[in-house]
Amino acid sequence: MSQRSPQLSKAQQCRFQRLSASQPSRQIQSEGGVTELWEESQEQFQCAGVAAMRNTIQPNSLSLPNYHPTPRLVYVERGQGFISVTFPGCAETYDSQQTQMTSESQSQRQDLHQKVHRIRRGDIVAIPAGAAHWCYNDGNEELVAVSVNDLNHQSNQLDQKFRAFYLAGGVPERGQQEQERQTFQNIFQEFDSELMAEAFNIPSETVRKMQSKENRRGLIVNVRERMGFIRPDEEQQQEQEQRGGQSDNGIEESYCTMKIRTNIENRRDTDIYSRQAGKVNVVDRHKLPILKYMDMSAERGRLYQNALLSPHWSVHGHTIVYVTGGDANVQVVNNNGQTMMNDNVNKGNMFVVPQYYTVTFKAGNNGFQWVAFKTTGWPLRNPLAGYTSVIRGMPLQVLTNAYQISPNQAQQIKINRGGESLVLSSGGRSD
Amino acid sequence: MSQRSPQLSKAQQCRFQRLSASQPSRQIQSEGGVTELWEESQEQFQCAGVAAMRNTIQPNSLSLPNYHPTPRLVYVERGQGFISVTFPGCAETYDSQQTQMTSESQSQRQDLHQKVHRIRRGDIVAIPAGAAHWCYNDGNEELVAVSVNDLNHQSNQLDQKFRAFYLAGGVPERGQQEQERQTFQNIFQEFDSELMAEAFNIPSETVRKMQSKENRRGLIVNVRERMGFIRPDEEQQQEQEQRGGQSDNGIEESYCTMKIRTNIENRRDTDIYSRQAGKVNVVDRHKLPILKYMDMSAERGRLYQNALLSPHWSVHGHTIVYVTGGDANVQVVNNNGQTMMNDNVNKGNMFVVPQYYTVTFKAGNNGFQWVAFKTTGWPLRNPLAGYTSVIRGMPLQVLTNAYQISPNQAQQIKINRGGESLVLSSGGRSD
Amino acid sequence: MSQRSPQLSKAQQCRFQRLSASQPSRQIQSEGGVTELWEESQEQFQCAGVAAMRNTIQPNSLSLPNYHPTPRLVYVERGQGFISVTFPGCAETYDSQQTQMTSESQSQRQDLHQKVHRIRRGDIVAIPAGAAHWCYNDGNEELVAVSVNDLNHQSNQLDQKFRAFYLAGGVPERGQQEQERQTFQNIFQEFDSELMAEAFNIPSETVRKMQSKENRRGLIVNVRERMGFIRPDEEQQQEQEQRGGQSDNGIEESYCTMKIRTNIENRRDTDIYSRQAGKVNVVDRHKLPILKYMDMSAERGRLYQNALLSPHWSVHGHTIVYVTGGDANVQVVNNNGQTMMNDNVNKGNMFVVPQYYTVTFKAGNNGFQWVAFKTTGWPLRNPLAGYTSVIRGMPLQVLTNAYQISPNQAQQIKINRGGESLVLSSGGRSD
Repeated sequence: MSQRSPQLSKAQQCRFQRLSASQPSRQIQSEGGVTELWEESQEQFQCAGVAAMRNTIQPNSLSLPNYHPTPRLVYVERGQGFISVTFPGCAETYDSQQTQMTSESQSQRQDLHQKVHRIRRGDIVAIPAGAAHWCYNDGNEELVAVSVNDLNHQSNQLDQKFRAFYLAGGVPERGQQEQERQTFQNIFQEFDSELMAEAFNIPSETVRKMQSKENRRGLIVNVRERMGFIRPDEEQQQEQEQRGGQSDNGIEESYCTMKIRTNIENRRDTDIYSRQAGKVNVVDRHKLPILKYMDMSAERGRLYQNALLSPHWSVHGHTIVYVTGGDANVQVVNNNGQTMMNDNVNKGNMFVVPQYYTVTFKAGNNGFQWVAFKTTGWPLRNPLAGYTSVIRGMPLQVLTNAYQISPNQAQQIKINRGGESLVLSSGGRSD
Repeated sequence: MSQRSPQLSKAQQCRFQRLSASQPSRQIQSEGGVTELWEESQEQFQCAGVAAMRNTIQPNSLSLPNYHPTPRLVYVERGQGFISVTFPGCAETYDSQQTQMTSESQSQRQDLHQKVHRIRRGDIVAIPAGAAHWCYNDGNEELVAVSVNDLNHQSNQLDQKFRAFYLAGGVPERGQQEQERQTFQNIFQEFDSELMAEAFNIPSETVRKMQSKENRRGLIVNVRERMGFIRPDEEQQQEQEQRGGQSDNGIEESYCTMKIRTNIENRRDTDIYSRQAGKVNVVDRHKLPILKYMDMSAERGRLYQNALLSPHWSVHGHTIVYVTGGDANVQVVNNNGQTMMNDNVNKGNMFVVPQYYTVTFKAGNNGFQWVAFKTTGWPLRNPLAGYTSVIRGMPLQVLTNAYQISPNQAQQIKINRGGESLVLSSGGRSD
Repeated sequence: MSQRSPQLSKAQQCRFQRLSASQPSRQIQSEGGVTELWEESQEQFQCAGVAAMRNTIQPNSLSLPNYHPTPRLVYVERGQGFISVTFPGCAETYDSQQTQMTSESQSQRQDLHQKVHRIRRGDIVAIPAGAAHWCYNDGNEELVAVSVNDLNHQSNQLDQKFRAFYLAGGVPERGQQEQERQTFQNIFQEFDSELMAEAFNIPSETVRKMQSKENRRGLIVNVRERMGFIRPDEEQQQEQEQRGGQSDNGIEESYCTMKIRTNIENRRDTDIYSRQAGKVNVVDRHKLPILKYMDMSAERGRLYQNALLSPHWSVHGHTIVYVTGGDANVQVVNNNGQTMMNDNVNKGNMFVVPQYYTVTFKAGNNGFQWVAFKTTGWPLRNPLAGYTSVIRGMPLQVLTNAYQISPNQAQQIKINRGGESLVLSSGGRSD
């Protein structure tokens, strides 16, 4: 009934003076790919309470089953594959899904339990806290996925530190990876093998294989024979329906069958479009209802050559921007009368725009493309310039008196961008 | 789904031993008024997680547009004026409101976008986090408004520190106001003026005016010609209806048109009234539904000469009391067997009663009037004495055994206040 | 709208390496019983944000009225009695309940206000934050009750420290009980007695008795004459109906009449049952709707000789396990590749299993019985072994490639426990 917000400990405060675009600083090399990690202890990530990573899975490789105490939003930057997400408490509903699997291998018996989802470039995938998931690259190119974990979400009653619990594999013992070994571990590894053998009713030899003690191939492994899945055509259709029929009632009932993915590059779903300036697609709790429970959202943006994103502030959460192409000048200011960021950003950079701070982008000559992850399921912006801006909503006299300008100047501030709103074309007014 | 409460860092703990009534300790002098601030770092405000201030706006002056990361509840202590609050994400609905503005000035064109509300003495005004607002004093006396900001509300994902983002003006460079300059700044000030000129499609000269670099008149400015607003009569009526028809469904749909003000001195809305002792009016999420989202509430109380407020504890939030007239002896005790407060308080004093701590007021010879702000939208009290008290709800034998008293004495404890409940008349029983 | 989770200060972090079963380390001896406290500052309790205690009330003794800033879940381990819980803001509804009281004593007049509930062995009792309660042992044996307080629940806006506010009694001045004296105090004690006399309209002499300054019998007192209560037969029935009719709407309306207790040993309500292995009963927000607001739940478990609880992780909250009989080997592992616990636990031990950490129990020769308290109203487990396990939900090829095992071995991992799910029989497969 109460709605208290988090208290941030010293280290997590947002009182820093400088934001900067950064690249992943650590990596875990596995047999079938690589996991790159942004430095979680950077002030900007501490302030936003997020941990970010980029996974590259080689063709015919498997990202091993794991779960984490945080909701995670994933953007598929390149490639295709299959992902399976096991919702807690929903295991017994699998049979009724009648999802079927087949394979070039002859090893299948009646293996009807798994639920797998096709993922491809441009997809946003939602993984709830505590849900075990694995991912297989069945394509011919690398599968690259950028993920943001929201450490402050209330589903995490542990402290603000990223943890991953693997059901197989584990970080190899070689190299300078002490921190990674402590974060990404195989939970079977330390259980007594006799006890596990009894729990599963299997030979101890098999348990020792599950513990991966001798043979650590990392977090992503090569697959010996190609895996294949046949998914019923109904699923796609069903997902469409669920999206429409979602309601506030019957949380738990519908939770188990909720859609976990959507494509953020779907042209029909464009939220803001300007022929001169660019476009923005949002995936929020309306487009993907599971985001209501995860309280996260995502946005895909594209600015054309030299276009601008209107200076604005976000009200319901922090924004974590990942640059997917082009370049831009990014300016962020705070309420201390300081510029927190005034930098050029490029492909592969990530930076945080804290909640309520004002930000603007100006694309370079090659335009600018990005994906933003947000720590709210209900993302709202207040633009300062443009048709829907707060300044356009103010009476002329408020502007003339606030800025000591003439009514004409005030009118220009309000209307000179014409019908343009969030994405603004280069060189001024368009219609 | 989970409902975890905030964790308080060292500085914000409620383990202090002493509460005291305090006056604002800092002030920002502006051209058109003054902003007085209570010391946010005082233990009692840290425990409650609030920042309090009092704004005095001179006649024909304008409090400049600004927003803050916290919900704010405002009590209009004196005067009258207009306030405009721009809800995030609702800008585009302004046109359909058909609110119109007029003015002695000839500068108006088709300026139909703003939504303004008449405010006057006794009003409680709710300003959601991140909503830009401005306020104009169109009356003949000072407009005095006391505000409490709830820093712990979940809408604030930044740390527990008050911040204000101004769209114009800024704290003057003169004097010892370093702390204020860091808290109340003009966000345009540090943006690159060429970039802003392009974003608004206006001359750089106008942007430099918006940045107010040369001419800082503070946070409240004089208005050159009187401003006037015509508000449609329908609004008042519409507000009435909205209050009745509010429901839990359709949050976002109704959010944009929610009522933001109500008068707390409305006699018909009195919640507790005693001819001998005084009265209490509450503005909670039922009377002003937006308080459900802001999770705050307010109370207006009046005790007659020497009357008492029953010793009681509040269950859902902290209470911040602002004294508007008269005087009283206030006692607050904690669970350490200590008196946290046993002081006389007077007009203009503010003090915190932490959640769950027991408090009682005894009015002086001139009675006692106050406004209380609460960090919950659902304020509930447990009185110890009076008709609705927890002690009256206990069996006689529990009292005789708990206190080693006779059944007669126990009966007196239960019934000697007769039908009186929260406000208790002086000198004992009344009916 | 946002759902941010708590931030844990240094002391409350979950980065410790070792869990251990513990006994209460402190105790408060009272005239009519004893209060034993687990050490709140232990890392495991700090991580879970809970304070645990065990109250032993002698026959014909009364646990004095008190309240606390945290929701509390109580398990009645032994004996029987009456409990009264006064919901905040619901006092005035007592009359209409028509609950009546009688007694061997002749002191009763028209004392119709209290609402009392019969409690007995096996009951789970829910006490909301801020609700005053007292408890009377009317049986012939000791009444033993184990309680867990959730300090992190959002209803607590104070800091993470256990506090109890007593309306009578108080910790005696003798002995080394400084910490207890600071936590469990009589709130009347420090109020000015003249002011209290006026508030209740009673003689100062009676107030001094209420303050218990001279005569501290502790927190539980002997009762001079036996107390008796007649409860209307309707209540039981009514409670049944309320449970069925609970809905999300009308929170406050139904809050006052919500059921606060249920028996966790009710055979008809068993959630998981295996003739060979044991059984588990859960009391969650569905079985006891008030737990939705308290966001806590409980579980009663029994494993037969040498049976196992499947290795699993809990997703929505921490688990605090209290051992009621038998013994077991308990293993808990974390994501650092470390065993946090691999101990034998016995009757009277308590330990925490942090959220998301994997745990397994193996009962000893005399079986194993426990009660678990959970910091969520919606407890969900992800078992690793058994019919409903996440591993059974994975395709064979994922297992063969993850563990480098044969399809046959993978199939064994998936199906060797047959239809068994959470409770697993000793020595392997059963059906």
